[in-house]
Amino acid sequence: MDARDIEAEPGTVYLVGSGPGDPGLLTVRAKALLEDADVILHDRLPGPKIIGMLPDERCEYVGKHAQGERTTQSEINDRLVEYARDGKKVVRLKGGDSFVFGRGGEEAEYLANHGVPFEVVPGVTSAIAAPAVVGIPVTHRDHASSVSFVTGHEDPTKDESAVDWESLAEAGGTIVVLMGVKRLPDYTAALREAGMSSETPVALVERGTWPEQQVATGTLETIVEARDEVGIRPPAVTVIGDVAATRESVLDALENEYAPVADGRRGDGDD
Amino acid sequence: MDARDIEAEPGTVYLVGSGPGDPGLLTVRAKALLEDADVILHDRLPGPKIIGMLPDERCEYVGKHAQGERTTQSEINDRLVEYARDGKKVVRLKGGDSFVFGRGGEEAEYLANHGVPFEVVPGVTSAIAAPAVVGIPVTHRDHASSVSFVTGHEDPTKDESAVDWESLAEAGGTIVVLMGVKRLPDYTAALREAGMSSETPVALVERGTWPEQQVATGTLETIVEARDEVGIRPPAVTVIGDVAATRESVLDALENEYAPVADGRRGDGDD
Ligand SMILES: C[S@@+](CC[C@H](N)C(=O)[O-])C[C@H]1O[C@@H](n2cnc3c(N)ncnc32)[C@H](O)[C@@H]1O
Ligand SMILES: C[S@@+](CC[C@H](N)C(=O)[O-])C[C@H]1O[C@@H](n2cnc3c(N)ncnc32)[C@H](O)[C@@H]1O
Repeated sequence: MDARDIEAEPGTVYLVGSGPGDPGLLTVRAKALLEDADVILHDRLPGPKIIGMLPDERCEYVGKHAQGERTTQSEINDRLVEYARDGKKVVRLKGGDSFVFGRGGEEAEYLANHGVPFEVVPGVTSAIAAPAVVGIPVTHRDHASSVSFVTGHEDPTKDESAVDWESLAEAGGTIVVLMGVKRLPDYTAALREAGMSSETPVALVERGTWPEQQVATGTLETIVEARDEVGIRPPAVTVIGDVAATRESVLDALENEYAPVADGRRGDGDD
Repeated sequence: MDARDIEAEPGTVYLVGSGPGDPGLLTVRAKALLEDADVILHDRLPGPKIIGMLPDERCEYVGKHAQGERTTQSEINDRLVEYARDGKKVVRLKGGDSFVFGRGGEEAEYLANHGVPFEVVPGVTSAIAAPAVVGIPVTHRDHASSVSFVTGHEDPTKDESAVDWESLAEAGGTIVVLMGVKRLPDYTAALREAGMSSETPVALVERGTWPEQQVATGTLETIVEARDEVGIRPPAVTVIGDVAATRESVLDALENEYAPVADGRRGDGDD
């Protein structure tokens, strides 16, 4: 038997990715740990279906509160260490994968610095899965030999912007932007200025695999309008590149879409 | 009940990602479909543990043969259509995620063109999970606000090389190279020429989550030697960027490593 077949160990923290939201996309290991944990620290990103499955009495919500206040990362870190030292089996549940814009790296370092044992349980990241379930492969032999995941959180006009849109445009692969609904006008403009064609296909996938999944499609030029027409709100990913057009060509055969699809283009079609 | 809770439909193809190899990292949906399928087409990438779980009589091997011959993609496409038209419940099982260098996009298009319904079941990609389980987060708030997955298959000195190593170096985020064991000397050189520091941390993770998992760590300058010392062979991912050094700082607290770790650096330590 593998170490990983054993149930949760007391005094250990499990950094668990939930996948994009469909409980069917939890990993087998994640599901077992959620059942076995003494305490589960989570925010809203795992989505209503997975959160609805969790036992209230073992859950601790550490996300944003109604008043807009957020549990700080340092409070969360402290809580994880406290519970572990108390001998609890602790699950830190993150939407998608903990190590993709999930601060799992910081939590791992903090735990290690405090001598708390931890295990990483990778999850299905929304950056790949949200596009995938609506028919968009982030790589494609014919037209994408690389894919980059970037944060759209920052102001691309600021000099200190950590994301180098110009180099990404030049690299020529697919770009998937996370946390990028609000600043969509800014970085689509930055990419066009960097020489990317206005005709480049773009898709927005909101709440991928949730019951409220929504999709908007367009080009670097038209996507802001499509976003507003469909009413895309966070959480959503933006897929930029030729692969975004694949949806169009496979849609008729795509089974089990998660929700009645509101899709700018689809409405214009013949179905 | 969701459409996705239903078992496999006859005449449908399921494009299923297996995750990196640990059966615990199969998704719940993938596991159910593997149990329910009439026929499972796969190669070796899902790894010995997952392949060992599959029922022989329902499996069809479509990978490389002993003589080095490979089932062609067009043969695989035809087979998928044939089985589906025969009313079979068909699983096309891919290592990691089908849409990350997995030709899932081509298969989806082919199926759609032939009027065969399909569902995409995303998996945990090795590009994220293999680094994760050895303590390496592909993004990090302090030092990586983007991550790019690229193929290392191609000769970086060829003019037509689809991967633009220079732009990737400039973009400044983490780079994860798939299919890049053999050409490691070529693209590490290309990145250094593009101005990336020789001191940039690099890690190779072979067979992540398999019983034979191996890790080699170093820098852009030393990693080729580390690869040869540890004896890293495909399949492995190369992680390039500051995050690769995280392993070092969390290793003592990291639980449930999959295998006795052969690690250049670790042997020098005090354990
Ligand atoms: C802080 S990041 C965390 C990403 C997460 N760790 C992952 O691997 O999916 C939050 C962003 O993830 C994306 N996201 C998370 N879940 C999503 C979903 N179900 N559908 C679309 N986007 C999602 C959105 O871009 C959101 O702004
Ligand atoms: C054709 S690509 C397929 C990638 C796969 N679709 C995925 O998402 O992981 C094959 C490459 O994936 C990587 N790979 C697959 N499984 C791996 C594992 N368990 N550990 C490390 N690398 C792996 C290696 O770089 C290998 O050369």
